[in-house]
Amino acid sequence: MLDNLRNYSVILGSASPRRNELLSGLGIDFNVQTIDVEETYPDTLRGIRIPMYLAEKKADAFADQVSETHLLITADTVVLLNNQVLGKPANREDAKRMLKQLSGNTHQVITGVCISTAYRRKTFHTVSEVRFANLLEEEIEYYLEHFKPFDKAGSYGIQEWIGYIGVEQITGSFYNVMGLPVQRLYCELKKW
Amino acid sequence: MLDNLRNYSVILGSASPRRNELLSGLGIDFNVQTIDVEETYPDTLRGIRIPMYLAEKKADAFADQVSETHLLITADTVVLLNNQVLGKPANREDAKRMLKQLSGNTHQVITGVCISTAYRRKTFHTVSEVRFANLLEEEIEYYLEHFKPFDKAGSYGIQEWIGYIGVEQITGSFYNVMGLPVQRLYCELKKW
Repeated sequence: MLDNLRNYSVILGSASPRRNELLSGLGIDFNVQTIDVEETYPDTLRGIRIPMYLAEKKADAFADQVSETHLLITADTVVLLNNQVLGKPANREDAKRMLKQLSGNTHQVITGVCISTAYRRKTFHTVSEVRFANLLEEEIEYYLEHFKPFDKAGSYGIQEWIGYIGVEQITGSFYNVMGLPVQRLYCELKKW
Repeated sequence: MLDNLRNYSVILGSASPRRNELLSGLGIDFNVQTIDVEETYPDTLRGIRIPMYLAEKKADAFADQVSETHLLITADTVVLLNNQVLGKPANREDAKRMLKQLSGNTHQVITGVCISTAYRRKTFHTVSEVRFANLLEEEIEYYLEHFKPFDKAGSYGIQEWIGYIGVEQITGSFYNVMGLPVQRLYCELKKW
């Protein structure tokens, strides 16, 4: 499948082991390369524009390294609750605060994805809705203690214990909540 | 967590490696025991009643083996398309036929779960909706060739390649589609 990409060397520009696993699931060969990018964005950006901007910013960092034979995939995922971005927590207390906010509420998870080759760029986004059950304080504490989700937007991983016990419903793509909307990405790559 | 179960020895009555993995994700200790049960049901049953009946039938098979210290979990998952059950495929052609039916359509995945102890039984079900993109014939052939989903209701596993490239949207529990609605099960176990 995706034979149209056979002349490209695909690069995943992400240090996320989850994105690595998800892209592997599409059955294509790729290498991982990472460049540190400060995940800041203009104050004027809202909602879906934020992860799309950051996916492009991550792609920009590779500008010197993408030759005519490369196809680069970069992505950024944000959690939105009542239109406010929940980023990566600053510390354990901050993570606890976020999980209390998510408890009993529905939030959006948005991943922006940027596909770049030397002469072309396509950026898109995918939105999933996630409804959390009411979480007990002891459940939040147990999760923080055992899973330390301090590198995760919104302070949780849906594929971890908290996702098993706490997520009542999702609407949209599950894999998007994990960090990469693989079905949409596959469609975009198929018509590249 | 689930300290209320500490006096029980939990048994998962299922040979499914996916259910084993999903129950493990709840962080409880359990053993797997399996008894072969013919997955037949009365013609008069429809929809959600079918997996609930089969989950109870599987529990019945353990009647002699559940003592006062055991808590048994059994489950059955069915795929419904236009109110017709898609079971496990009889052969490769049958699997291909099912995948062509699922292509471009929305179907329901329903898991019935039965929790049994010596003096009590609770059976419930969870419904998830899954929308497939239009699948190409070559995508169906590739999946059948590489993943051989002949033991799976509806002839697919959402956690496999076909789920990555083909599932546009789910509404409900992702883990239910994999075979066990862990969030609902956790709630039921918490108040057992």
